[in-house]
Amino acid sequence: MSKNTDEVFKNVIAHAKEYGFVFPSSEIYDGLSAVYDYGQNGAELKNNIKTYWWKAMVQLNENIVGIDSAIFMHPKIWKASGHVDGFSDPMIDNKDSKKRYRADQLLEDRIAKYDEEGKTDLAEELQKEMDEALKAENLPRLRELVIGHDIKCPISGTANWTEVRQFNLMFSTQMGAVADEADVVYLRPETAQGIFVNYLNVQKSGRMKIPFGIAQIGKAFRNEVIARQFIIRMREFEQMEMQFFVRPGTQKDWFNKWKETRLQWHLALGTDAAKYRYHEHTKLAHYADAAYDIEFEFPFGFKEVEGIHSRTDFDLSQHQQFSGKKMQYFDPELDENGKPYGNYVPYVIETSIGLDRMFLLTMINAYEEEDLSTPEKQDSRTVLRLHPCLAPVKAAIFPLTKKDGLPEKAREIMDKLKLDFNLQYEEKDAIGKRYRRQDAIGTPFCITVDHQTLEDNTVTIRHRDTMQQERVPADQLEKIIGDLVSWKNLLG
Amino acid sequence: MSKNTDEVFKNVIAHAKEYGFVFPSSEIYDGLSAVYDYGQNGAELKNNIKTYWWKAMVQLNENIVGIDSAIFMHPKIWKASGHVDGFSDPMIDNKDSKKRYRADQLLEDRIAKYDEEGKTDLAEELQKEMDEALKAENLPRLRELVIGHDIKCPISGTANWTEVRQFNLMFSTQMGAVADEADVVYLRPETAQGIFVNYLNVQKSGRMKIPFGIAQIGKAFRNEVIARQFIIRMREFEQMEMQFFVRPGTQKDWFNKWKETRLQWHLALGTDAAKYRYHEHTKLAHYADAAYDIEFEFPFGFKEVEGIHSRTDFDLSQHQQFSGKKMQYFDPELDENGKPYGNYVPYVIETSIGLDRMFLLTMINAYEEEDLSTPEKQDSRTVLRLHPCLAPVKAAIFPLTKKDGLPEKAREIMDKLKLDFNLQYEEKDAIGKRYRRQDAIGTPFCITVDHQTLEDNTVTIRHRDTMQQERVPADQLEKIIGDLVSWKNLLG
Repeated sequence: MSKNTDEVFKNVIAHAKEYGFVFPSSEIYDGLSAVYDYGQNGAELKNNIKTYWWKAMVQLNENIVGIDSAIFMHPKIWKASGHVDGFSDPMIDNKDSKKRYRADQLLEDRIAKYDEEGKTDLAEELQKEMDEALKAENLPRLRELVIGHDIKCPISGTANWTEVRQFNLMFSTQMGAVADEADVVYLRPETAQGIFVNYLNVQKSGRMKIPFGIAQIGKAFRNEVIARQFIIRMREFEQMEMQFFVRPGTQKDWFNKWKETRLQWHLALGTDAAKYRYHEHTKLAHYADAAYDIEFEFPFGFKEVEGIHSRTDFDLSQHQQFSGKKMQYFDPELDENGKPYGNYVPYVIETSIGLDRMFLLTMINAYEEEDLSTPEKQDSRTVLRLHPCLAPVKAAIFPLTKKDGLPEKAREIMDKLKLDFNLQYEEKDAIGKRYRRQDAIGTPFCITVDHQTLEDNTVTIRHRDTMQQERVPADQLEKIIGDLVSWKNLLG
Repeated sequence: MSKNTDEVFKNVIAHAKEYGFVFPSSEIYDGLSAVYDYGQNGAELKNNIKTYWWKAMVQLNENIVGIDSAIFMHPKIWKASGHVDGFSDPMIDNKDSKKRYRADQLLEDRIAKYDEEGKTDLAEELQKEMDEALKAENLPRLRELVIGHDIKCPISGTANWTEVRQFNLMFSTQMGAVADEADVVYLRPETAQGIFVNYLNVQKSGRMKIPFGIAQIGKAFRNEVIARQFIIRMREFEQMEMQFFVRPGTQKDWFNKWKETRLQWHLALGTDAAKYRYHEHTKLAHYADAAYDIEFEFPFGFKEVEGIHSRTDFDLSQHQQFSGKKMQYFDPELDENGKPYGNYVPYVIETSIGLDRMFLLTMINAYEEEDLSTPEKQDSRTVLRLHPCLAPVKAAIFPLTKKDGLPEKAREIMDKLKLDFNLQYEEKDAIGKRYRRQDAIGTPFCITVDHQTLEDNTVTIRHRDTMQQERVPADQLEKIIGDLVSWKNLLG
């Protein structure tokens, strides 16, 4: 079955809803833009991805610990981090349609159009002028470029534009009851700062020695103007971030190590390596001295899934300055001249992965519409070839029929296994139909209890990927399934 | 060691910070009121409590599934649920001190004072008048009572009060970029509504049959005026909620079942049953036809940890009305007259537990300052007697000394076990000191590698609670630790 990529993407989204992975948020109220809910299978898959990351980062690394800091943080933190002043997009409104756009995105679209039309000179010139205007935060110049290049609103068709204004991407709310003193607080736009402001507490209470890392999984919020592509860009999303604190001067080695380690984490899932690539940032953020993205080839092209950033001592130094607290580490080890390194503000390597993007990547990668036709008969199935460690349901247990004591026997087997594995019991419809439903949610194994089971306590186990069945003793199921879904297969 | 309860509570809070369980949020910026961060040991303990709940509720119950819905929801949902109009406290300001108070709490304090002074008649009368005023939402009457009973601001000492006004507890923010159309959205004050609005999607995509449940763990936010008692009442907190959908008329039986089941979940941890009690709500919320709290005896008295509520069909009916979507279930089973029950809006039993309160309960319950003095020597230790399933670190591995190849041998043992258990390696300080540090974070087992290990591959394993040591073969550690920390001990 060959499909164009748009169609595949649409089918994955439809499949995610039909089989309880992802629902549009507040759907009965016609949805809330760029917000999604995880359904019964999505929640399990997402939890398994979290577990894979947490085990790989925290449990297997003696010098990395995990924390869970709050979404609400002191507002000064976002001043120190640069988000209050710098975390904004240049917006422009069309006065006729009342629609708002990112000015730089309008220009990017125009550049792409010039390229398409072979006007590479124009494209290059506009790119250069836009970059300069963005760098200088010259908003009037951005507007001149929009008007000068005759960009029109796709809704109204007019060039009746307002001024360009900076629009901050942080959500804000008011905390406290005393109206006069009510403080504005922000919903964190990244989890990283929750790690930086806890650096001292963790280092001291955990007696951590450099190099060491602090990891965290949690929600972050950005008031994206143009939120799009399903769960790729949401206003509420989840990050898995790790900040690794190192001695100044060693950051390059650690950066290279983490860049490599993180790609291996992705590839261990069995994904085709050709679907991944590194993207080096040529324009670095003000805090970084090196930055790479790990990109995955989604149906709509390569997109960032994870970033590895060498953040220097920017964040800790900023917090030192804004909070007045020393963010230093005393390093007793000796340098090449035999003198202790002494006190310094550590440098930081960050690995930051978008959990929702990782979820979508996993779904897209696993999704297959498989043609099973034979010369005699047309047939097909939709199967999610999820890694068994990530599959929401590890095994389904079916009595062949609803009578002769088969359901009772099936439940007896289930009761023995259900504490070890997430299982599903199904007795409705023919076995073939039940297999298809489990294929669709990625269940690696289906176990059928039939009349022979009552005689010799054996069951059939059917494998999702090969669709092959084998007959095994029921009392070996714990070991058979256990071996196949063990984290050792991914992390051992 | 006999301590007063205030002191014990203070010691637990100090211990939680010193050993990386709970830090005040944004501490280097002097904190953010009523918000806390979980440190490296707190995050693990909290995750283990979540796992215990999720396994007990979702994995072991064939008819309960878990979801993960967003914090942002359509604002109409909070209109339907009653939170926009009703989720507020009556507030009154003192004009001199500029401090704001809950009017009903000022009155409650006065009633308690009357009781203390033996003026029970006055106490009863004021209670009655206050209840009537609250029920009728008669705010001017509340003010009259405050003034009539001569209540003064504890700061200014004056009775110079403003009017009483309703203050909504929901945090609000603005979503979207188009300033004119910007929508107010709320941070959910409870996770339950995320389940109700997904009821149809889950029921259909999961082919769920009544009775069935939907569970969820997630953050909720309330702009508490008087946030207090450490992590007992926070502005950002986490809930573990399950909504169980049943046939109308059967709610009483299910209510009793869940009330019992949930208490058993608490008691399975080994907590003294005398520390728990049920509290029946005599004044029921408008949506409920029965409600019990499970209360735990904290150092400052009995406090709600979990609520079990029979919510009738209130929520689903409200959403049916406000969204215009049918929130019905078709029940094909036959009633006593042989007719199908047919279409109805299900009734709901809710179990709702505060994760942070459960965390605090667990810490307080586990915390012990143990006197180990002998006639010869004064000695003591602080130990967290956490259930092994909940302990952040399952085992610590120590080389007896830093030489003779013992660290290498210890790490070799650690490498074999670290994928199965969260471990800690420590080589600094004397063994006794290392034991104490592990006692303080609740690690059930300490494994020491000594010179004999190099000869016969045996190690000592030291038990936290008894402080007894035994010598065991190193290759049996996986089984020994595995058996002791197995979820089967709690859930089997």
